[in-house]
Amino acid sequence: MSGLRITGVTITPVALKDPPLLNASGVHEPYALRSIVEVHTDAGITGINEAYGDDATLALLARAADGLAGVDVFDLNELSRRIAAAVGGVEASSPTELIGAASGDKTVAQAVAAFEVACYDAQGRATGRRVADLLGGAVRERVDFSAYLFYKWAEHPGDYEADPWGEALDPDGIVKQARRMVDRYGFGSLKLKGGVFAPEEEIEAVRALRREFPDRPVRLDPNANWTVPTSHRVAEALAGELEYLEDPTPGIPGMAEVAARTELPLATNMCVTGFEEIPEAVRLGAVQVILSDHHFWGGFRATQALAGICQTFGLGLSMHSNTHLGVSLAAMVHLGAATPNLTYALDTHTPWKWESEDVVAGGGLRFVDGAVTVPAGPGLGVDLDRDAVARLHEQYLTCGFRRRDDVGWMRRVRPDWTGKRPRF
Amino acid sequence: MSGLRITGVTITPVALKDPPLLNASGVHEPYALRSIVEVHTDAGITGINEAYGDDATLALLARAADGLAGVDVFDLNELSRRIAAAVGGVEASSPTELIGAASGDKTVAQAVAAFEVACYDAQGRATGRRVADLLGGAVRERVDFSAYLFYKWAEHPGDYEADPWGEALDPDGIVKQARRMVDRYGFGSLKLKGGVFAPEEEIEAVRALRREFPDRPVRLDPNANWTVPTSHRVAEALAGELEYLEDPTPGIPGMAEVAARTELPLATNMCVTGFEEIPEAVRLGAVQVILSDHHFWGGFRATQALAGICQTFGLGLSMHSNTHLGVSLAAMVHLGAATPNLTYALDTHTPWKWESEDVVAGGGLRFVDGAVTVPAGPGLGVDLDRDAVARLHEQYLTCGFRRRDDVGWMRRVRPDWTGKRPRF
Repeated sequence: MSGLRITGVTITPVALKDPPLLNASGVHEPYALRSIVEVHTDAGITGINEAYGDDATLALLARAADGLAGVDVFDLNELSRRIAAAVGGVEASSPTELIGAASGDKTVAQAVAAFEVACYDAQGRATGRRVADLLGGAVRERVDFSAYLFYKWAEHPGDYEADPWGEALDPDGIVKQARRMVDRYGFGSLKLKGGVFAPEEEIEAVRALRREFPDRPVRLDPNANWTVPTSHRVAEALAGELEYLEDPTPGIPGMAEVAARTELPLATNMCVTGFEEIPEAVRLGAVQVILSDHHFWGGFRATQALAGICQTFGLGLSMHSNTHLGVSLAAMVHLGAATPNLTYALDTHTPWKWESEDVVAGGGLRFVDGAVTVPAGPGLGVDLDRDAVARLHEQYLTCGFRRRDDVGWMRRVRPDWTGKRPRF
Repeated sequence: MSGLRITGVTITPVALKDPPLLNASGVHEPYALRSIVEVHTDAGITGINEAYGDDATLALLARAADGLAGVDVFDLNELSRRIAAAVGGVEASSPTELIGAASGDKTVAQAVAAFEVACYDAQGRATGRRVADLLGGAVRERVDFSAYLFYKWAEHPGDYEADPWGEALDPDGIVKQARRMVDRYGFGSLKLKGGVFAPEEEIEAVRALRREFPDRPVRLDPNANWTVPTSHRVAEALAGELEYLEDPTPGIPGMAEVAARTELPLATNMCVTGFEEIPEAVRLGAVQVILSDHHFWGGFRATQALAGICQTFGLGLSMHSNTHLGVSLAAMVHLGAATPNLTYALDTHTPWKWESEDVVAGGGLRFVDGAVTVPAGPGLGVDLDRDAVARLHEQYLTCGFRRRDDVGWMRRVRPDWTGKRPRF
């Protein structure tokens, strides 16, 4: 098995339908963009992964892929070195402003992640091992996820197929959405995407959820759409009612000001999204929980390094999600299973996906009682459905969307919309 | 390859001859104790490792080994869990006070390390992969080591075979020792074990080394045998002359006081020897370089987590050594090769070993120009010489030493010796 060298890479952009989910920036567009990464080796084994699919990411991945021929899929240090050399000079970019400020290091990390996970899948296929085993072993065979609740419109502006979830623009709509999602998937905890309406309305939504689901922890994530005083006010109102409060306000100093006056743990996937931001956050005590995401932290090994830092400095560790397909879900499950201190239920956008749309054979992993069982097969334990990939690639070609722009899509309805934060 | 479960463990204590090397505690005894760990699996593959060999460690390893049957050698999280459960309650102990204060977590880490490395060796033998590959890939195929210089007597008190190195009790003796070691091994950097004589004498020894070897970085390690004022004085005298100053004074607060008044990087393998000590050290800026050691940090994965912390917080990373044989050397080489930010030459006691004494087939890995090439074979790339293990085990049985006691051995010559630090 000494030969397991990369001979080539295939990157296939795909588009999946996405409901009009509201957030601090604006609203999700009718299509979300992802890419399917395939790393081919001289052993005839191909490792797969899923990454962002916007134009900037596709250009980044293409540039990174150019330098990978001959790299052993076990030699992840060489993979990182080659990618850093290939893309180190490109302009820093981020597929969405909702995962914090872009930087050169984060851009490299995002490219490394796209290929590193595929290399792990190839390692697993070659050795007959699950990725969770290659990451140190599954400490749990079932990985819990939370219900990711969004304010939303019933339909997109324009001529797009309506999703099955209907409108949710007030506490009652959110509770109904939660009930339906819990009934279908069995989620044991709830997360509300906030930063959409006045904080008082969102406080009411959280309280309505708490009344309806008294046994389920609730999180609230306004995506840094509040000022520090507003954050203080909400934190005081919801003290003892939230599992954690995510990114109430922009930036590490602001978060530290909020943290100093509340017992509520503050979580982030915006002000600490790369290793470079950790020292200041630790020094100021700005956050108590980091929401990891292998897609932008640099892959599995980088996320495990992050886990070690969280363990050492007494920080909690949870997991963030952007809109994704079944390959990313499998990757999250393996990583979540093999990371002992990842004890919070993970975020996932899976329920917002059309059930007919996935790239994974069999339609993807199933949720039972809110959890996904680590797949038993080698590598990530999921295979591509080639017909499905072709369909979603065709949809990518025809949909007309090429980069995520929640602000621009909101302008279709509200021409004066800026998406400027903090708005409240 | 799905079956690679532990069926049993063999632990063989061995003793190797050791010269009368002087340090802050006292002097090395005529024999150093190690143990050879073998982890047997149901696939017929056995992974090997080397650990401490004192009575307390042997008891610890025996207790840990009892719970390991059935653990998959890839399931390192389960290995850790089982060991923590088995030894979590034992009294904290350390094989030497020269690696800092004992703690329960460190005791568990030491036990995990002993078996985790053997599991990696088994993984490598099963997959045909080098341990360096399993740790993310070798970023360097040659790993640099430094010449580890000691003040020493010509002979042990009593009836023991003299070592070939002769006496070194002043700058001239140290320079001669360094010349001989550099000529034989090609080391590109030098480390002087200090804390033995008055600081002024050791300053003179460092200066003599600098004159004789102007191109070779020099380190000085008094093992916390100086007060803070003494440390200030030495740091001022040697500013610009040392690569780093190791553990001048005891404890994190004391180290922070020293660090605050010198530009010399302070390194440690005494005040930060477990994850629990990192936050205070970071907060106070007490150390600039951590000397890792997989034997007590908890194995390869833990040391890589430490490496991630050092990278994130801008700390340097080097590697500590206790007296060891060729299996530990191989483990250090693989880890050193696969850790990108381990950029300092590693410490090793190899030159102090009788050349006729090793447990590794072929006599062990060779130094060329001060470096060891990562062995090409699967796993650690070294095999046990069964006859040699038997000989060193017989020597263990007859030598009469069962725990390291540098203080007690010094008392043979100086009955009033206490080993109390700081002495200067």
